[in-house]
Amino acid sequence: MFKDITIIGDGAMASVCAMILRQKGLAVKMWGYDPKQLGEIEAKGENIKFLPGYKMPEGVVYQPDDAKAMLSADLILSAVPCQFVRCVWSRLNKYSPDNIPIVSVTKGIDNEKLLTPTEIIREVLNGSREYAALSGPTIADELARRLPASITCASCDIELAQNIQYTFATEWFRVYTNDDIVGVELCGALKNVIAIAAGIIDGTGLGDNAKAALLSRGLAEIKRLGVKMGARDETFSGLSGLGDLVTTCISPKGRNRSFGEAIAKGADPQETLANSNSVIEGAATCKSVISLAKIHNVEMPITQAVHSIIYQNKSVSQAIQDLMTRKLKHE
Amino acid sequence: MFKDITIIGDGAMASVCAMILRQKGLAVKMWGYDPKQLGEIEAKGENIKFLPGYKMPEGVVYQPDDAKAMLSADLILSAVPCQFVRCVWSRLNKYSPDNIPIVSVTKGIDNEKLLTPTEIIREVLNGSREYAALSGPTIADELARRLPASITCASCDIELAQNIQYTFATEWFRVYTNDDIVGVELCGALKNVIAIAAGIIDGTGLGDNAKAALLSRGLAEIKRLGVKMGARDETFSGLSGLGDLVTTCISPKGRNRSFGEAIAKGADPQETLANSNSVIEGAATCKSVISLAKIHNVEMPITQAVHSIIYQNKSVSQAIQDLMTRKLKHE
Repeated sequence: MFKDITIIGDGAMASVCAMILRQKGLAVKMWGYDPKQLGEIEAKGENIKFLPGYKMPEGVVYQPDDAKAMLSADLILSAVPCQFVRCVWSRLNKYSPDNIPIVSVTKGIDNEKLLTPTEIIREVLNGSREYAALSGPTIADELARRLPASITCASCDIELAQNIQYTFATEWFRVYTNDDIVGVELCGALKNVIAIAAGIIDGTGLGDNAKAALLSRGLAEIKRLGVKMGARDETFSGLSGLGDLVTTCISPKGRNRSFGEAIAKGADPQETLANSNSVIEGAATCKSVISLAKIHNVEMPITQAVHSIIYQNKSVSQAIQDLMTRKLKHE
Repeated sequence: MFKDITIIGDGAMASVCAMILRQKGLAVKMWGYDPKQLGEIEAKGENIKFLPGYKMPEGVVYQPDDAKAMLSADLILSAVPCQFVRCVWSRLNKYSPDNIPIVSVTKGIDNEKLLTPTEIIREVLNGSREYAALSGPTIADELARRLPASITCASCDIELAQNIQYTFATEWFRVYTNDDIVGVELCGALKNVIAIAAGIIDGTGLGDNAKAALLSRGLAEIKRLGVKMGARDETFSGLSGLGDLVTTCISPKGRNRSFGEAIAKGADPQETLANSNSVIEGAATCKSVISLAKIHNVEMPITQAVHSIIYQNKSVSQAIQDLMTRKLKHE
């Protein structure tokens, strides 16, 4: 079990991880890209920008200094939005201790090199260390309320996964281990595209049969791609696959689902993206997935439909009709 | 493609199947156990008892006579609640034409011999014929409104499955074929128990993280049992597995989910079951699943928890605490 954790990032997920780790009495440092924002969290005792309404725990050390942030850590948690991972870790490269493992909670695939979050960090950092990914159905504000939840910790190093499991597990937070880090990271990224489609179904009032079919066929197509990329089939049925897909598609708060709902109700996709305060991860990921589907020669009709709606001006009704009238198939 | 279909049963699913088949211009006869109820549907042009608010289609022949019901049929659809399947088909045995295939839309496992619906019919009927099962996320009143939906048609005889696929498919109703009839029928039965657990989560306000985790771990445990009983793993990730599980767990109307919600809010399980107008299939199925889990030596913690709450007076909060504090595991 780890005892001294540095959290890189100051978003909602970074904050709830601090809450969980402090509940367990562990040493927690939090680093943020913007010292002003980090200082505000410390001053207010609350992350008003990203997790309003919940007190930050006592005893967190807020450390904006790159050189000091990771000095004593025996585990580093990377909790940075996908499109900032490369830039943050390039900046932190020379201060990142070798041999101290990094666990990532980021979800996404970068548009540039089509890499998962830990693949990006691995590419950027000098030295060698083990990596893990924590992913699952974990809406941050439910975690802040200590509602029961569970998550998967994946690593090629199963001992590391187990150590992280024991570090994070509480009586209301179950952590399962898994050795398929590629699968777990792909699940976390790909499901956001399906969540946009789920929002489109909500926005058009097509009902629960259609939404359930979408989840089922959506999981089938992201699994087809994942398996071609080296992920294990079963991972997609697990907490980080099916589990996370379900929360993202049913939670009224989800940004990706809400974005889909808005465009189904007539909002312009590009305008909505441009005016959004927070990142709609699925819209960016969608582009990467289309590239990956081409490279790996995988049919992904739902992702393709979402892409056509967001980036190619296809109407929602035409996209749905095209999906429904495809050739009849074996399941 | 079949041209002359006899529907055995006069419930909601029987009625929407009549609507779909008549939309395709096929000959449809409907038989009911109770001639009076069948006569009422004919007289009112609406199934007021089981599918109120939707007109029955023109041209359905309502045939209460056992001998005449299946005379000209080239396909028979069995749409009878699970606990009546044995009794109905015993009565119809001598009028059931040999060699005319039967496709079942019933979901459940009987308490007596632990058989799936087509296994019960197969056991009861003389003569030989092929069987198929149609199952998936298909809430009846959404089908009656022609909202887009999809379903799996499973049979060991893949040609039969394809013929049924073409018989039922419309521009808003997609039918996929599958050769795993055991898996498809088990999915349809077992998910109702998980839906009761989902309702319990709704009733206790535990949130979407917990509900998503439940669906994911619930699917994992019903798959463990199914695979031991000869079902294929992938079937549980398909429309009849994951797809149907999702609708059943999210639709506010679902009887099993609503039953779970009621008991989580303090209703007595046995009283609620006794006073319910319609069958809570998952409560009956739960008993069969506990027996099957014992026979096949499969761990099913969620099903066990539901069983303890309904039949062994365990409190909801105790059951949840027991589930959350089990030994930490590999996924």
